[in-house]
Amino acid sequence: LHKGTMPDLWQDAMDHAVTLARKAGEIVRDALQNDLKIMCKSSSVDLVTKTDQNVEQLIITSVKEKFPEHSFIGEESVAAGEPSVLTENPTWIVDPVDGTTNFVHGYPFVAISIGFAVNKMLEFGVVYSCIEDKMYTARKGKGAFCNGQPLQVSDQKEINQSIIATEFGSNRDPDVVDKIFSSMRKILCLPVHGIRGVGSAAINMCLVASGCVEAYYEIGIHCWDVAAAAVIVSEAGGVLMDVEGGPMDLMSRRVLAANNNIIGERIVNEIEAFSAVRDDAPSLVPALLEQRSTK
Amino acid sequence: LHKGTMPDLWQDAMDHAVTLARKAGEIVRDALQNDLKIMCKSSSVDLVTKTDQNVEQLIITSVKEKFPEHSFIGEESVAAGEPSVLTENPTWIVDPVDGTTNFVHGYPFVAISIGFAVNKMLEFGVVYSCIEDKMYTARKGKGAFCNGQPLQVSDQKEINQSIIATEFGSNRDPDVVDKIFSSMRKILCLPVHGIRGVGSAAINMCLVASGCVEAYYEIGIHCWDVAAAAVIVSEAGGVLMDVEGGPMDLMSRRVLAANNNIIGERIVNEIEAFSAVRDDAPSLVPALLEQRSTK
Repeated sequence: LHKGTMPDLWQDAMDHAVTLARKAGEIVRDALQNDLKIMCKSSSVDLVTKTDQNVEQLIITSVKEKFPEHSFIGEESVAAGEPSVLTENPTWIVDPVDGTTNFVHGYPFVAISIGFAVNKMLEFGVVYSCIEDKMYTARKGKGAFCNGQPLQVSDQKEINQSIIATEFGSNRDPDVVDKIFSSMRKILCLPVHGIRGVGSAAINMCLVASGCVEAYYEIGIHCWDVAAAAVIVSEAGGVLMDVEGGPMDLMSRRVLAANNNIIGERIVNEIEAFSAVRDDAPSLVPALLEQRSTK
Repeated sequence: LHKGTMPDLWQDAMDHAVTLARKAGEIVRDALQNDLKIMCKSSSVDLVTKTDQNVEQLIITSVKEKFPEHSFIGEESVAAGEPSVLTENPTWIVDPVDGTTNFVHGYPFVAISIGFAVNKMLEFGVVYSCIEDKMYTARKGKGAFCNGQPLQVSDQKEINQSIIATEFGSNRDPDVVDKIFSSMRKILCLPVHGIRGVGSAAINMCLVASGCVEAYYEIGIHCWDVAAAAVIVSEAGGVLMDVEGGPMDLMSRRVLAANNNIIGERIVNEIEAFSAVRDDAPSLVPALLEQRSTK
């Protein structure tokens, strides 16, 4: 394929992603209406469900059939030992069920997240918040939408008129919990209007894109939680950065999405940053296998 | 009226409450679609909007016309200097817009809350989460419903399999913030699956009734935030208590709603309780007038 045809090819991939996200959402909603059968848990806050694996398998199979040359990074595949390294190859970055804890409890924020990168640059993102039935989509340079309606971040520049989204996360290491609480407290007392968090990184970021919250940050998320929503935030006029400032690194397990740089930098000043094992770290696969026994 | 006719009378009042909640929800949704014009603020986290006052006026006028002998306790009326004392008289306890901060930001959890008490006992509750279009209703002894579907609390008895809802609140007094963060941290590290909060006391309690979260607690709420939802929790099989255990006191500004006593007591053990000025304190009206200049 020569360059001129590429935009159409990615649009084709994006249309397919939307179709897959909607189909996956139906599976998730069906599973919620039946009793949940949790296969195994790595800890009380990191639940892996059968649905997670079913949905990822559905997406992998369909993508491999339609785009056999594309690469794939998915939460469940990585858990099963596949590498999580972003190459130049067109790559689907998928979280089959973002908000697994919510899912297990029927808490109504569960998303299918499908991001797509080429030459290590994100090209489009699809986040389907399937209980709310909200389909968020964005293609690089073409804007962000929710159910077809254009999205625009908040124009707020005053931190003390803002709502900030974040999460307590699943890590209960006391040092990590210290830093999470310390950051939250400093932000709360700036003061801000409030702190919120729906329990899904992808949906929190879509709320930034929608202008409902000014910023969202978290340390400990994975590339598949944020790849799709990063395009949506960016195309809605927002900014992405690292929690210590500077550009976002998709594999760093850290994200800060904001409506603008003023609010973003203000939050950076308050966050007590820490590191997490990178998604593309060579040691990650054995570590994950040790932590999560999915077989 | 003699006793035999009373149940029908309250059912009539409840039907009227549902009609009013739906009408109020339309006003709120309309206001959200137009630009919000905030009339005044008591602080950056306690926003009072025109809609709040419009909706309360709509409800008061309609209730006074249909039930002229009934009493009324409402957030905006109290702010305007009317007393907030529960008598034996049939009393409507109304929050026209629960989740004002959410409303101002378009964060999608805003509720109209209408509770009704006779002889100081709650008889029915109506909570309309108007952006989600979820109508929660409960009549004493007749069950709780969401859009007509019966509600049932979670049957979870293990705290470490639970999600707990709470809020950071609007008080930024360092001693209060200390206690709020300390309680949250102790609960998070029990551990629990997660801590959530949608920014509306009434909707948080409806999530307990729906089984999505096991418990919700908060100090600083008002009787109009929780009166309606207390009936909904109770009729869904849940329990209501004070944050230090023992029965809930509607005027105490403190609430703990749980799926059962086991989870409720477990949370009581972790909460660092504090007091707030009671809703029915004689000094409340001048204090409120000082704090909030609504004219």
